[in-house]
Amino acid sequence: MIDRLIEKIETCGNPTVVGLDPTLEMIPDFIKSEMFEKYGKTPKAVGQMFIKFNMGIIDGIKDVAPAVKPQIAMYEKYGLEGISAYLETIEYAKNQSLLVIGDIKRGDISSTAEAYASHIEGTEIEGEFFDLWKEDAITVNPYLGFDGIEPFINACNKRDKSIFVLVKTSNPSSGELQDLDASGGKLYEKVAGLVDLWGKLSMGEKGFSRIGAVVGATYMEQGEELRKIMKNTFFLVPGYGAQGGKGADLKGFFNKDGIGCIINSSRGITAAYKNDKRFNETQFVEAAREAALIMKKDLQYV
Amino acid sequence: MIDRLIEKIETCGNPTVVGLDPTLEMIPDFIKSEMFEKYGKTPKAVGQMFIKFNMGIIDGIKDVAPAVKPQIAMYEKYGLEGISAYLETIEYAKNQSLLVIGDIKRGDISSTAEAYASHIEGTEIEGEFFDLWKEDAITVNPYLGFDGIEPFINACNKRDKSIFVLVKTSNPSSGELQDLDASGGKLYEKVAGLVDLWGKLSMGEKGFSRIGAVVGATYMEQGEELRKIMKNTFFLVPGYGAQGGKGADLKGFFNKDGIGCIINSSRGITAAYKNDKRFNETQFVEAAREAALIMKKDLQYV
Repeated sequence: MIDRLIEKIETCGNPTVVGLDPTLEMIPDFIKSEMFEKYGKTPKAVGQMFIKFNMGIIDGIKDVAPAVKPQIAMYEKYGLEGISAYLETIEYAKNQSLLVIGDIKRGDISSTAEAYASHIEGTEIEGEFFDLWKEDAITVNPYLGFDGIEPFINACNKRDKSIFVLVKTSNPSSGELQDLDASGGKLYEKVAGLVDLWGKLSMGEKGFSRIGAVVGATYMEQGEELRKIMKNTFFLVPGYGAQGGKGADLKGFFNKDGIGCIINSSRGITAAYKNDKRFNETQFVEAAREAALIMKKDLQYV
Repeated sequence: MIDRLIEKIETCGNPTVVGLDPTLEMIPDFIKSEMFEKYGKTPKAVGQMFIKFNMGIIDGIKDVAPAVKPQIAMYEKYGLEGISAYLETIEYAKNQSLLVIGDIKRGDISSTAEAYASHIEGTEIEGEFFDLWKEDAITVNPYLGFDGIEPFINACNKRDKSIFVLVKTSNPSSGELQDLDASGGKLYEKVAGLVDLWGKLSMGEKGFSRIGAVVGATYMEQGEELRKIMKNTFFLVPGYGAQGGKGADLKGFFNKDGIGCIINSSRGITAAYKNDKRFNETQFVEAAREAALIMKKDLQYV
């Protein structure tokens, strides 16, 4: 997957991933009314809204960006109907040739991590194979150490998938643990060292590992420093736009050849129709496309 | 929830939670064949097996133990059908008056953590309220710091629910990050200090906070030491039995009044029929009950 991601970024000329994190507030009224009328004020209605909205966004950006990143929490909030919308979104995105990074941040002890690894490895039932989740990559939490990561690495090797391990997250409180002094460095630097090491267990063909890292755009200096620690690690970078980071801040996150990152924007693209007065809500697809093109331009220094 | 848990532990005279972490290998053949015949080799068949198996286990232990802890990964492995089995298991357990701790180990930045908090807070859709997940408590990962925890604390206060924050996990690699020297102590001690602090934001009536901690039975000395750091924190203790911990090792995890912990056993109870020669597979309910009673006895020093 990591080689396909690098290729697709080159083809698009754009290291962007579009975050599909729908909320009720984000859905245009004409979609909301349609689904509430059809299904009542129910989780089913919300699931159907999310699918219709996401399909529009995907249509708008599919030739501009190489990948989408649905955040599963937004769908879990609506129970089975929500998760069903997550799965349908992934299926639609893949049919449009987009790569899909499932932002699921799972992590647990080894036998449990093995079960979670089914997101990228698929599930076998008495010799029958089922790919029930279909993500190309997922995000993973490192707090439990290597035995909680190993099953995901094995899955990456087996199916040519990827994971992105949380190293330095984009949120304001990320420093509470991640910036602690730990054995002669910061904790996130220690995690970075481990991710670099773990990454050697699953190298792609283009110099990058299938084991990537989440590095927040909101911490510019740390991002540059982490690039030095993790030379062969692909970065998934959240926090661009809505959370504060800008294109020019991110140059040091890439390697000297201008590769090694995919920058996420969620609301900045998907809810663009709310902020760009040139568009009304029925034009949310065009607004998302325009926002994705503006972001592409903002990252052109790469 | 934390007060109800303390009461229910007293009533049962047993600080045990039964982990409902089904695998295909664990399911007795007579249930397996029934469901494969009805539904083919499909996720639906596995989901139905898990429900039938869990209902048996719940019937066997409902007057012996105060709570069950389904591990959502085992269900996610089978996609929507698996998650549907997770939800039906919770519903059945609650109808049998058991408390339910959802072992979901979620954790993310604030706006996303808010969505995950729906597990314990429920979901509102245009003024209509849905309790789609129904857990009484869930496990949470602290790697992102306070802004990723706060939405869960708010949910605990709003609905009298609980969370258990990962502090020192039971797995072999847990020390890779958690035991690092961090600002004059170990990282897990630092997390313990934060959990103690966060806990003050959601105190119950019986001296314990709704914000609990996961502390592995496999690290006896650390558990005793953590009890001193987190005086008002309830511990969810995995790693008893199958992972190695024994009753006598756990005395120091409790406070001087013998309260403050709930000890998890999963396979040791649910798969007891495989290890106890007095039972055959059709007696998996009786075997689970017997294993739960033996465990209760092992913890009677409390």
